[in-house]
Amino acid sequence: MSELGDKTRDSVRDPDPATVPAEQQAREADLVERVVRSFDACADPRLRQVMVALVRHLHAFLREVRLTEAEWAAAIEFLTQAGHITDDKRQEFILLSDVLGASMQTIAINNEAYGDATEATVVGPFFVEGSPEIPIGGDMSFGAGGEPCLVEGTVTDSAGTPLAGARIEVWEADGDGLYDVQYGDGRVAARAHLFTDEHGYYRFWGVTPTPYPIPHDGPVGRMLKAVGRSPYRASHLHFMVTYEGCRRLVTHIFVEGDELLDKDSVFGVKDSLVRRFVRQTAGTPAPDGRSLDGDWSKVRFDIMLAPENA
Amino acid sequence: MSELGDKTRDSVRDPDPATVPAEQQAREADLVERVVRSFDACADPRLRQVMVALVRHLHAFLREVRLTEAEWAAAIEFLTQAGHITDDKRQEFILLSDVLGASMQTIAINNEAYGDATEATVVGPFFVEGSPEIPIGGDMSFGAGGEPCLVEGTVTDSAGTPLAGARIEVWEADGDGLYDVQYGDGRVAARAHLFTDEHGYYRFWGVTPTPYPIPHDGPVGRMLKAVGRSPYRASHLHFMVTYEGCRRLVTHIFVEGDELLDKDSVFGVKDSLVRRFVRQTAGTPAPDGRSLDGDWSKVRFDIMLAPENA
Repeated sequence: MSELGDKTRDSVRDPDPATVPAEQQAREADLVERVVRSFDACADPRLRQVMVALVRHLHAFLREVRLTEAEWAAAIEFLTQAGHITDDKRQEFILLSDVLGASMQTIAINNEAYGDATEATVVGPFFVEGSPEIPIGGDMSFGAGGEPCLVEGTVTDSAGTPLAGARIEVWEADGDGLYDVQYGDGRVAARAHLFTDEHGYYRFWGVTPTPYPIPHDGPVGRMLKAVGRSPYRASHLHFMVTYEGCRRLVTHIFVEGDELLDKDSVFGVKDSLVRRFVRQTAGTPAPDGRSLDGDWSKVRFDIMLAPENA
Repeated sequence: MSELGDKTRDSVRDPDPATVPAEQQAREADLVERVVRSFDACADPRLRQVMVALVRHLHAFLREVRLTEAEWAAAIEFLTQAGHITDDKRQEFILLSDVLGASMQTIAINNEAYGDATEATVVGPFFVEGSPEIPIGGDMSFGAGGEPCLVEGTVTDSAGTPLAGARIEVWEADGDGLYDVQYGDGRVAARAHLFTDEHGYYRFWGVTPTPYPIPHDGPVGRMLKAVGRSPYRASHLHFMVTYEGCRRLVTHIFVEGDELLDKDSVFGVKDSLVRRFVRQTAGTPAPDGRSLDGDWSKVRFDIMLAPENA
């Protein structure tokens, strides 16, 4: 895409279809209908609906911007590079979906607001199945560097009834802005799961979130640079909360006062998810008697789950 | 995409936005505007135009079909598989663009009809730079199996003036429906370039085109199967013709009577490109005195180039 930018600097075209001759418009429109008809034999009506809509919007985009053949080739090269950098640990296509807001829009579509239920946000590319379990009050950092942070709250249903045994997955970057999987040495750190107690309460130690860039040494990073966008995400801590009969909640909490809140590179911030991380100076005793040498922080996050089919 | 089909068989959703609550619609629309504004600092107006249009059409697609999170995950997996099968010899993203008609639409947009100039069609994934040169009357098959075919014609400008020294690249599948690069053994066959003589005339021996499937052992092939589409292309022979001051022509000729003409998997067929391949029975003498044991065919393709900036 940066190549695309270089090649087409002086060629802004008028996207107004009225500037395209009627005969040409008819040829283009006829092609769209031929492609649409090719899905007539699709036995799965939902798949057919999705593919036909994809074709119509894709062709509308091509026709509106009058995509050049050089731009088409740049797009093919972009996707090829994205495919080649993607592996078990790096997911460039999720990054692409994230920075185009497509991930957040999919979340929005599938998680309509339900009363005061906690809002959802993007899952991101760093969730890993099979995290270690910790007890209530345990430390999910597993040696990850950064300032200690005590996180606590309750999980309730939408009527406010505490949910005992709700599963809470938490994961985050360390104080250097990196997730464990980005080190490539097999470490498991700053990720864990725990379960609420009989009062729906949970508490764990983690790391105070800091801002970090999404991986930007690949084609998505080059595209962001070409369009003048920052790869940085607002500081956050990931949660995934599941309880039978409730809608699964995938969300983050964000740090009040973070200057990146209104320019998060993946559009994940929602006002309702911003929390005050209360600063604690060195020597302030922790409620669980933990011995702490330096500064730490604490935050409360009460979670309300929507019903499963809301 | 086949997984997508399996998972969503019973869930056709109404894409009518009127069925989505106003508050939800406003949240979705607000997200689109936030993503659009993230490109405000883009210094390249054409790049900004393309990216903003891409975002608007992508989000319109997601919102119209109410894409599920499982479908989003299937799309990420599809792109990942396409990336991993793509290498120097296999280009799954071009195949994807081809079967969605996006390649042909880009060709249509950039090659508006100009009088009686020969029409363009898709380049496909099998063009290779650096083909061997053959003289007029030479054989571009280089041992590729198949029925011999004598191809001849002239190259003129749009006023009908013969063009001497026009460069003609030709490439095609062999009698087994495979291009040389698909064998993976480094062979160069059924591809060459030659130049027109002082009368704008050319002639070469090749192979009578036969139908063949696009490579369909990857995610694009699985998608075609899931939607009930054939991977077969109508029989054709590729041309790329260049002459200074004229628009570069990338096209095919197709075989009159081929039953695949109206269901070409990449939508490349145009009526004006269908030619009569005249059957010649064994023993019919060739005009250049070539000795032929079996049946052969001959075809004429006169090419008219549009002016460069038409």
